Amino acid sequence: MTTTTAAQRREEAKLQFDVFLATCPSRQLLDRISNKWVTLILCALSGGGPQHHEAGDGDGPRPLRYSQLSRMLAGVSQKMLTQTLRSLERDGLVSRTVTATVPVTVTYELTDLGRSLVEAVRPLKQWAETHIATVLTNREAYDAQASRPSVP
Amino acid sequence: MTTTTAAQRREEAKLQFDVFLATCPSRQLLDRISNKWVTLILCALSGGGPQHHEAGDGDGPRPLRYSQLSRMLAGVSQKMLTQTLRSLERDGLVSRTVTATVPVTVTYELTDLGRSLVEAVRPLKQWAETHIATVLTNREAYDAQASRPSVP
Repeated sequence: MTTTTAAQRREEAKLQFDVFLATCPSRQLLDRISNKWVTLILCALSGGGPQHHEAGDGDGPRPLRYSQLSRMLAGVSQKMLTQTLRSLERDGLVSRTVTATVPVTVTYELTDLGRSLVEAVRPLKQWAETHIATVLTNREAYDAQASRPSVP
Repeated sequence: MTTTTAAQRREEAKLQFDVFLATCPSRQLLDRISNKWVTLILCALSGGGPQHHEAGDGDGPRPLRYSQLSRMLAGVSQKMLTQTLRSLERDGLVSRTVTATVPVTVTYELTDLGRSLVEAVRPLKQWAETHIATVLTNREAYDAQASRPSVP
């Protein structure tokens, strides 16, 4: 009988799944989590919400009501928010709690798995906010250049 | 005359841009970089390509030809790869070099800015490969549950 350590299992998982393979389930998962609404919901639930929001930053992870999330994610449609939350719940990243108040209160919070994903998506949010000025400058320079060939 | 340090400029950038605001340019940038093809191209150019690929892993950053990228990113269409590379070049994340061989050789490589983004997207790729098994289990459990309310 052999004993498998957690580290060995992680190594096996790494070998087994490869996002570069079109049919690997991890490719579909990468597609799912590579989504700005996923990033924004997870960051909001982790306490890293809008910088000037009432329940904004530095509060740490906490449950949020649907209406709070809807306000924090400016521009999100109800359909998109509902669908994204449902997917996150199905994937085990977010838990949904219904409290029997009048009217009923529904809150969402990160699971342990969700918290592990926050660590992976937060750098993306921070990178966008830190480097957008440079990217805008680069785009201007690119667009100012003469006509470019249209094939790779 | 005041001197602005790099740290101060970064702080200012953080205050100025907020991905939670629908009209902030950083929101559009987050949308652009939250894309599985962007993640896969950047990881491939950084040397973290397919696990069983000839030019696969552990080689460190290096230029790749269009055809190499096309092979490494299984399932990508030519249109999608060309568009994504053009966007990455316009944003200053990837540089494109044309060498006057016969036929012409076109290679792509990461810029310094692109390398900084690799650090932010690699955790996403790794998270997907590490946690897909858990997510698949969670989905089965969710789907096995009884009918669920259709409104948040």
